[in-house]
Amino acid sequence: MIYIYYMKHLIRYSISILTTLILLSSIPAAPPKKVVFFGDSITQAGVEPGGYITKMRQALKGDSSKYSLIGAGIGGNKVYDLYLRMEDDVLAKKPDVVVIWVGVNDVWHKTSHGTGTDADKFEKFYTAIISKLQQKGIKVILCTPGAIGEKKNFVNRNDGDLNAYSEIIRNLAAKYNCPVSDFRKTFVEYDLQNNPSNADSGILTSDGVHLNDAGNDLAANMLLKIITGLK
Amino acid sequence: MIYIYYMKHLIRYSISILTTLILLSSIPAAPPKKVVFFGDSITQAGVEPGGYITKMRQALKGDSSKYSLIGAGIGGNKVYDLYLRMEDDVLAKKPDVVVIWVGVNDVWHKTSHGTGTDADKFEKFYTAIISKLQQKGIKVILCTPGAIGEKKNFVNRNDGDLNAYSEIIRNLAAKYNCPVSDFRKTFVEYDLQNNPSNADSGILTSDGVHLNDAGNDLAANMLLKIITGLK
Amino acid sequence: MIYIYYMKHLIRYSISILTTLILLSSIPAAPPKKVVFFGDSITQAGVEPGGYITKMRQALKGDSSKYSLIGAGIGGNKVYDLYLRMEDDVLAKKPDVVVIWVGVNDVWHKTSHGTGTDADKFEKFYTAIISKLQQKGIKVILCTPGAIGEKKNFVNRNDGDLNAYSEIIRNLAAKYNCPVSDFRKTFVEYDLQNNPSNADSGILTSDGVHLNDAGNDLAANMLLKIITGLK
Amino acid sequence: MIYIYYMKHLIRYSISILTTLILLSSIPAAPPKKVVFFGDSITQAGVEPGGYITKMRQALKGDSSKYSLIGAGIGGNKVYDLYLRMEDDVLAKKPDVVVIWVGVNDVWHKTSHGTGTDADKFEKFYTAIISKLQQKGIKVILCTPGAIGEKKNFVNRNDGDLNAYSEIIRNLAAKYNCPVSDFRKTFVEYDLQNNPSNADSGILTSDGVHLNDAGNDLAANMLLKIITGLK
Repeated sequence: MIYIYYMKHLIRYSISILTTLILLSSIPAAPPKKVVFFGDSITQAGVEPGGYITKMRQALKGDSSKYSLIGAGIGGNKVYDLYLRMEDDVLAKKPDVVVIWVGVNDVWHKTSHGTGTDADKFEKFYTAIISKLQQKGIKVILCTPGAIGEKKNFVNRNDGDLNAYSEIIRNLAAKYNCPVSDFRKTFVEYDLQNNPSNADSGILTSDGVHLNDAGNDLAANMLLKIITGLK
Repeated sequence: MIYIYYMKHLIRYSISILTTLILLSSIPAAPPKKVVFFGDSITQAGVEPGGYITKMRQALKGDSSKYSLIGAGIGGNKVYDLYLRMEDDVLAKKPDVVVIWVGVNDVWHKTSHGTGTDADKFEKFYTAIISKLQQKGIKVILCTPGAIGEKKNFVNRNDGDLNAYSEIIRNLAAKYNCPVSDFRKTFVEYDLQNNPSNADSGILTSDGVHLNDAGNDLAANMLLKIITGLK
Repeated sequence: MIYIYYMKHLIRYSISILTTLILLSSIPAAPPKKVVFFGDSITQAGVEPGGYITKMRQALKGDSSKYSLIGAGIGGNKVYDLYLRMEDDVLAKKPDVVVIWVGVNDVWHKTSHGTGTDADKFEKFYTAIISKLQQKGIKVILCTPGAIGEKKNFVNRNDGDLNAYSEIIRNLAAKYNCPVSDFRKTFVEYDLQNNPSNADSGILTSDGVHLNDAGNDLAANMLLKIITGLK
Repeated sequence: MIYIYYMKHLIRYSISILTTLILLSSIPAAPPKKVVFFGDSITQAGVEPGGYITKMRQALKGDSSKYSLIGAGIGGNKVYDLYLRMEDDVLAKKPDVVVIWVGVNDVWHKTSHGTGTDADKFEKFYTAIISKLQQKGIKVILCTPGAIGEKKNFVNRNDGDLNAYSEIIRNLAAKYNCPVSDFRKTFVEYDLQNNPSNADSGILTSDGVHLNDAGNDLAANMLLKIITGLK
């Protein structure tokens, strides 16, 4: 009798476990959120060891099943270069989120090569990128360009344009309802506090433009907050 | 009997006429060949009275049922601006032929605004335009830029780049099997013959860049020959 | 007797007055202090009706015997143009004081014509001018350039360089012990307070560079204080 | 008597010899002709081993008592830099002949740094240098700039300006009656013949601007002919 009793219990118990397992497997694990980082050499370096994307991956290790971070940066890119390769390098990857970080070359190449981007064209191409991404239901995060030269108090040659183009980006973010990682504002404030000798580089960048370790930390932290805060 | 005989003939004749009419209507008049002129301010002015496209329309009057010439020029455009608006301004018109005439601003704006186009990017965007058009079965005609300043013997500031970018266009024409209207070559030769006082403008242009009447005549003639010669 | 007594007194008194008059006439009125304003188009416009030099002349009317203000501004001048014409346009006039106001074209022409002045050359030529003037015992007053564009908060394209070149001038003033009229600092602060709509011009300038009436007032006041305060 | 007769003759003869000797010694050997080479980095390299000035010294070895060749080239110099240091680096050396070779940086720095020299200013400073030298009775030899990039057929970016500025120099040479070493014309013709692969450098230059061994040979030969031919 006892044997039968136990058998009954065992069967009931087994069925209960089985049911739970079936239910669990029928609630599949959500696929990780795909985030593409779309930009220039700063982003190209971001996936290297110590880069800001690499640092974000490490910070998200516990949540590695939740986020997949994909680098799509190419050195020398301006906003219209992003537009040209958006189809292949971004849309083809079917991202949930795209972080756009561009602008340094659009400004800098004006004076270094005579091939920067006019402010009105910058806005036009930037708008075209945002629109195409949002039409696909992709969340878009904008970034203002950090620095071309780290001297404090606005004495770097390209500071005027860098501030003007950052303002364009902030306005686009407001207009298209995108979160914005305002590196320009943060870099200027940081350099004002942390650059007593008024050095041209070495505070958040290695060369005035590309991020050093402190810069990569700062960028990773700022972007992580936005990405993990997205609904 | 005769009545029957005539009736038979009449019926046969009627059928014959009917058949001919049906056949004629089933061989409809070919729709005119749609040619879109895709370019900058030179092309924007081309549809004005006296413009090169207007002159071509007049020359083709007898063949007005054969060709439809459509202007798609916007002032200040560089090659990447063409790429951005190709969908709306060219493809949407379902052209048979597209004439691309661009390059002056890509070169000129380097020194006038610091926002010209790097040679490698010029080639990249130009290639992307040709490829997209050819994929749709559209015939593509390329043009080299005529002049930025008409002084003879290569003393205009932008002559070096203008020659270099023209060479890029010639190479693309060869690579993609496109006819090329080599305005650069023709303008240089024409100015060398017809500019004894070494004037900066007034030979084929009104201001060194935009076509005067002689320039519009020359452009219309060169392009007509190519367009009417297309198989 | 009284008559003689009075005569004696009268003679003595007359001699005393005469002596005083002779002495006074032998201390001739000091010749007016010659001040040459050495600069670009801003200074060229300064001698026009309503210009800042004209306003200073009016303010000094009571002291017209004390100061002679001479305009020596030529449009488009950079620091090396001043150096080239210093002999003819400044030294030949044997000034007591020279006010140097230059820098806008040195910065601006970098981006407008590709013919600005490198920072190190700017300092070199500026130093050469100061040295030559001081060797002749001439007092030298330096001015920082006011503005190229009046948008506030450092978004004008040339703000970076304008701040950097102003810093060079401030350092030269300290090194060579010259009073400095810091227009750059004053214009930035004034525009921040008085340009709520962030206009590109119309606050202290008519076109972003050249002084409007408020600008001429401000410049006249600032320079008057320095010139009349010179020992 | 005969003795006296001989003595008289001997004395007369001695006096005659003495007079001759005195006269001869009062016609001293002509000091070597001092030639100062006044220019930029091309001339700075000219005094190095293998440089064009070094090569000229070797060629003139037999005439080393006739010519003293002095290098006065400084890297990065434009025409106004020459003007600034003319007193110290040229006039102080009391030259008989000055060879001016400048222009590459005046043109090149327009596009590389935004700090080239406007054509009208180039002519103005160049004229000021020639005038000051000729006023001191110094012979002045002008040189046109050779190349910025050696591609043939006028496709180097700066060819237009380089040709235009060379034309300014040729006109100044005609106006001020100076011999001219027309490197521009010679380099273009040489590259057209000797650059079948249309290389950017390596024909007469090591980097498109600075002379390689063939370039130094060519420059030395062209200048030697002019210098040794001066009356």
